[in-house]
Amino acid sequence: MKRLLLTLSLSLTLALVTHAAEVTSPNGDIKVDFQLVNSVPTYSVSFRGKTIVKPSKLGYELAKGENLLDGFTLVGDETSAFDETWKPVWGENSSIRNNYKELLVQLVQKSTERYMNLRFRVYNEGVGLRYEFPQKGKLNYFTVKEECTEIAMTGNHTAWWIPGDYDTQEYEYTKSRLSEIRGLFKKAVTDNISQKTFSPTGVQTSLMLKTDDGLYLNLHEAALVNYPAMNLNLDDKNMVFKSWLTPDAQGMKGYLQTPCKSPWRTIMITDDARKVLASNLILNLNDPCAYEDTSWIRPVKYIGVWWEMISDKADWAYTQQFPSVILGETDYSKAKPSGRHAANNANVRRYIDFAAENGFDQVLVEGWNIGWEDSEGNLKEQVFDFLTPYPDFDIKALNAYAHAKGVKLMMHHETSSSVMNYEKYMDRAYKLMNDYGYNAVKSGYVGDIIPRGEHHYSQIEINHYLYAVKRAADFRIMVNAHEAVRPTGLCRTYPNLIGNESARGTEYQAFGGIKPGHTAILPFTRLQGGPMDYTPGIFEMDCANGSHVNSTICGQLALYVTMYSPLQMAADFPENYLKHPDAFQFIKDVAVDWDKSLYLEAEPMEYITAARKAKGSNNWFVGSVAGAKPHKSILSLDFLDKSRKYEATIYTDGTHADYKTNPQSYKIEKKTVTSKTKLTLHSVAGGGYAISIIAK
Amino acid sequence: MKRLLLTLSLSLTLALVTHAAEVTSPNGDIKVDFQLVNSVPTYSVSFRGKTIVKPSKLGYELAKGENLLDGFTLVGDETSAFDETWKPVWGENSSIRNNYKELLVQLVQKSTERYMNLRFRVYNEGVGLRYEFPQKGKLNYFTVKEECTEIAMTGNHTAWWIPGDYDTQEYEYTKSRLSEIRGLFKKAVTDNISQKTFSPTGVQTSLMLKTDDGLYLNLHEAALVNYPAMNLNLDDKNMVFKSWLTPDAQGMKGYLQTPCKSPWRTIMITDDARKVLASNLILNLNDPCAYEDTSWIRPVKYIGVWWEMISDKADWAYTQQFPSVILGETDYSKAKPSGRHAANNANVRRYIDFAAENGFDQVLVEGWNIGWEDSEGNLKEQVFDFLTPYPDFDIKALNAYAHAKGVKLMMHHETSSSVMNYEKYMDRAYKLMNDYGYNAVKSGYVGDIIPRGEHHYSQIEINHYLYAVKRAADFRIMVNAHEAVRPTGLCRTYPNLIGNESARGTEYQAFGGIKPGHTAILPFTRLQGGPMDYTPGIFEMDCANGSHVNSTICGQLALYVTMYSPLQMAADFPENYLKHPDAFQFIKDVAVDWDKSLYLEAEPMEYITAARKAKGSNNWFVGSVAGAKPHKSILSLDFLDKSRKYEATIYTDGTHADYKTNPQSYKIEKKTVTSKTKLTLHSVAGGGYAISIIAK
Repeated sequence: MKRLLLTLSLSLTLALVTHAAEVTSPNGDIKVDFQLVNSVPTYSVSFRGKTIVKPSKLGYELAKGENLLDGFTLVGDETSAFDETWKPVWGENSSIRNNYKELLVQLVQKSTERYMNLRFRVYNEGVGLRYEFPQKGKLNYFTVKEECTEIAMTGNHTAWWIPGDYDTQEYEYTKSRLSEIRGLFKKAVTDNISQKTFSPTGVQTSLMLKTDDGLYLNLHEAALVNYPAMNLNLDDKNMVFKSWLTPDAQGMKGYLQTPCKSPWRTIMITDDARKVLASNLILNLNDPCAYEDTSWIRPVKYIGVWWEMISDKADWAYTQQFPSVILGETDYSKAKPSGRHAANNANVRRYIDFAAENGFDQVLVEGWNIGWEDSEGNLKEQVFDFLTPYPDFDIKALNAYAHAKGVKLMMHHETSSSVMNYEKYMDRAYKLMNDYGYNAVKSGYVGDIIPRGEHHYSQIEINHYLYAVKRAADFRIMVNAHEAVRPTGLCRTYPNLIGNESARGTEYQAFGGIKPGHTAILPFTRLQGGPMDYTPGIFEMDCANGSHVNSTICGQLALYVTMYSPLQMAADFPENYLKHPDAFQFIKDVAVDWDKSLYLEAEPMEYITAARKAKGSNNWFVGSVAGAKPHKSILSLDFLDKSRKYEATIYTDGTHADYKTNPQSYKIEKKTVTSKTKLTLHSVAGGGYAISIIAK
Repeated sequence: MKRLLLTLSLSLTLALVTHAAEVTSPNGDIKVDFQLVNSVPTYSVSFRGKTIVKPSKLGYELAKGENLLDGFTLVGDETSAFDETWKPVWGENSSIRNNYKELLVQLVQKSTERYMNLRFRVYNEGVGLRYEFPQKGKLNYFTVKEECTEIAMTGNHTAWWIPGDYDTQEYEYTKSRLSEIRGLFKKAVTDNISQKTFSPTGVQTSLMLKTDDGLYLNLHEAALVNYPAMNLNLDDKNMVFKSWLTPDAQGMKGYLQTPCKSPWRTIMITDDARKVLASNLILNLNDPCAYEDTSWIRPVKYIGVWWEMISDKADWAYTQQFPSVILGETDYSKAKPSGRHAANNANVRRYIDFAAENGFDQVLVEGWNIGWEDSEGNLKEQVFDFLTPYPDFDIKALNAYAHAKGVKLMMHHETSSSVMNYEKYMDRAYKLMNDYGYNAVKSGYVGDIIPRGEHHYSQIEINHYLYAVKRAADFRIMVNAHEAVRPTGLCRTYPNLIGNESARGTEYQAFGGIKPGHTAILPFTRLQGGPMDYTPGIFEMDCANGSHVNSTICGQLALYVTMYSPLQMAADFPENYLKHPDAFQFIKDVAVDWDKSLYLEAEPMEYITAARKAKGSNNWFVGSVAGAKPHKSILSLDFLDKSRKYEATIYTDGTHADYKTNPQSYKIEKKTVTSKTKLTLHSVAGGGYAISIIAK
């Protein structure tokens, strides 16, 4: 492997290659070439012989000018192969194959006695690469000024992107050429209560790309632990992406201690968009489950006291009387209720009844605890105590009522991003949950982070989110964190992280609407790292506040299949479901955990059709969403068991359905199907279809 | 009270005084004048008709240029009087009189509809003034850029000062004219592992001053709650002190929410230095005790496994094998012990035996828990877990052993200033203490603060220190916090805060020595806010590391009386006490809680002589420390009960004692004394004397 090559580079400067090594995917499609060029580590990636990533540098800029960028020599390298099949606690498939070839390159910067290793794992559908810093030589503690990972593109690809930001991912996607990002950036940055962009060509991962010759690329990261989240900054002259980490309050980008490693930087490459959706690259690059006992972790279908606040029909707050609140001083017992507080005993009981009658596992109740009157945007250190219910929320009685009906309440911890305050109360808050029988919490991080100056994606916050999940496990609690960092596959290691938001969710349908196509891009991007609590199932598209939900009822039903999550909400009001009991039946029937998942059709932002076999059963569910254009599917049901017959219930958009003007139009057809059945199905723009296929 | 005055100010500009009010101390000595001059709030202070504080402005600079500096008009004012006597849980006196007259001035900045009140409390020995912001008008949440409180001196006074700093108070004092601070500043800034000065005329409080006509002034603050700590920046052309708050990571200096108030800014004025020491101004300006049950709070005399690490005879760390530690990954069971780990079972048992034999309540053990190998200066987020003992520290057996002998172990929580990490573990750490029967913790904040960019005295850290104390109370735990903010009398409200360090303590005797005089200035400055865990009692002045303790044995004995604290350590090794059992007897005898305290002699940095009557007994203890010069006392014991006889044991420096060359020379004399006895006593430079006066 050790060769000394003298080559003439394109720029006509002498490039002294002192080491070169390569590794290919198990099927040989993807090849990674590593070279030490003028003592700088570089890599390139090809797919079936065609360059996908041009020679790209690797390294770090450290604080105090002590860089790990050049001056490297080889210590050694080794290649290996790995092939195993593992079983997730929950997931799209009951077993997952993890099969890769690996190249480990060990380097030393001799002038400083600092060691840096590069590990490349090459799968059939993509590459993971990471930095590793052994505890060896003179590198012990170090502060990162910037990670300098390049991913050099070969052309002006098409990208589906959202603006790079340190605090939010709640943006709509823009489809454009890479060269057009700069011009479209400002328009793409819509308002958020906490946001911080950094460059007019900065974009977030997972980033979906398509080359002019039809290859699909996806850039993301896996196993983000004790490290800031990465954005990508595009050099749009040369079409080179550069890693851009989230800074802390001091502008620094990581405090590391050997032995340590960076998250994986991932590059997915395929000629079939469906393979992006089916890929387990991110999960496979994470560590196995860290818990011995996972019996307490289970998928959840739930409803909640939530959409009425989101759509401005009701309030989280109990009173409108207090201009501001000081916990421990403000006396709620003397407050005049506004009459708009949704988390009251009667309303919560109504939801519990509905959940019990319709087979939901849990009822989320937001606004149950004191402090909501001034919870947003005031940089308050103590907004909530996570312990004290409002006077009209009888926590003991309501939990008892729910449990008697076989339902659990879902806890809600809005932190207002005062992370230090949440950590102070966390043990007590989790213990309260144990005391009353809650086993899942939706947490929220709305607003700017406290400690002030830190960002949602700074290292210290990344550590907080994982701490909250690991500590929850000590209390056998499942976590669904909203406004936290977008996931990077950590749910494999910590499967009580059953959901995240970290993207523009259904709530934006009540904040002015989401453009059709959003749910046809999210599975390519946001969902690469893990499930999203997208909160689908809106049947009444005209919100109390005048906002319109840009979808059809069948488009909403489809999401229970196309947006994989072990945590699925039916977000609309009980009364709206009762107006459409036949369509609601699909939500009642659909599974939330799966033996097998197939992506039948997919094109980013245009359409996604998925079929999934419910865990431990022979029943299948199919969902399909359409983007801004209508979509026609010709589906072969050849995935069904050839020896069985099934009863299919097919929910499709009505012929004259329209996501703007006629969203509640749908048709329901029942028929017997087999593995030989072929179905032709139509979705309107912004619509979709859903099918339940029940084994006879 | 409402007068309209047109006066010609010194600078020959027209000053329109639209309101004036005044308030005097109960005895009439001190007068505060408030004036609204050109719509700017100002105050001045006089003592027996003589100006002490010249007209000084009050106000705030807020973020975003929204200032509370001028444009004020009067809403109203009112005066009142207060006189009560209260009983502290522990203290220098069993009851304390709180007697003041008060002026409340209510102001509005009409152009912005913002209300600001000024409250002045005038005691016989000084003034407290604070800002109050009612929840009224348009001021709800606001961010402070700077508090702009002036304290305008009348001349170039003598000051005993330490450098203004956001992170440490561990400096030696410099005595100089105010005009000399700038020139002496650099020399005064000695190294500390975490420090941040801000101005060459910045000084800390409590600041001791003396005017050329013999008045003693003291500037400090009281009741520092949810607000950054204040330094003073001196305008040394005009001799005006200006408040200078500690910034957060963003450079902001306080996030406030109405209704709220600033800490008290205090100005003590007296013609007798002893009255500064006897004053209860700071305590009186704090709120009454917040706890209903205080039965679990009691003074503590203790020894500890500590001085051997400080003097470099032993280590906190268990092994020298690990270049760095990652909790949960580093395997201590396989570590090779260095043989220098002091917190081992045998050594701790030896201390427990000594404590039991000599009547000490507790044994502090530092270095009991894993993580010490790389605990300092690495900006590590997780240094300690506060839960896991080293392999050679059997937490269960050692506590049982101690309890069987009537002794408690004292817990130690070094945080390495990773405050977020400590808060994550705090509940578990306190619970562990409950489980094993610890009832007091020494906490430490060595190094730069995490969250990074915050300072030891930033608002968020101020909130942390108090949180740690209040949360400890939930577990019935007493707290002795080192490297935390200097106290401001909060021990009245939260008496489980039984000690603080927050100044240069005895440990610096092992870090190169402390100049004589240090313990004769600390009671004037650092101790104004509350007791200090000064850790006196060193008998062997030559440390293992070559450092020399600049004191005599009698100088050390005196500190148990002159440095009031409900928490007193005998810091030296058992074997050193056993070499001088007769002198050690004083440490065994001396009380740690008092009915009454008298300051018999005092001059800053030169000498302090105190006499205290032990709580619930008729025994008295006297201590006297001398600074850089020898001191001769002629003591009248007229404070003794006239109807009793006492046996006095008098511990004085030997005739040829010398803090450098002959520190262990002392004389012990026993004699019968009465209230008519007069004693002539000599202390050498850096020395002192101690007397126990036991009722017959």
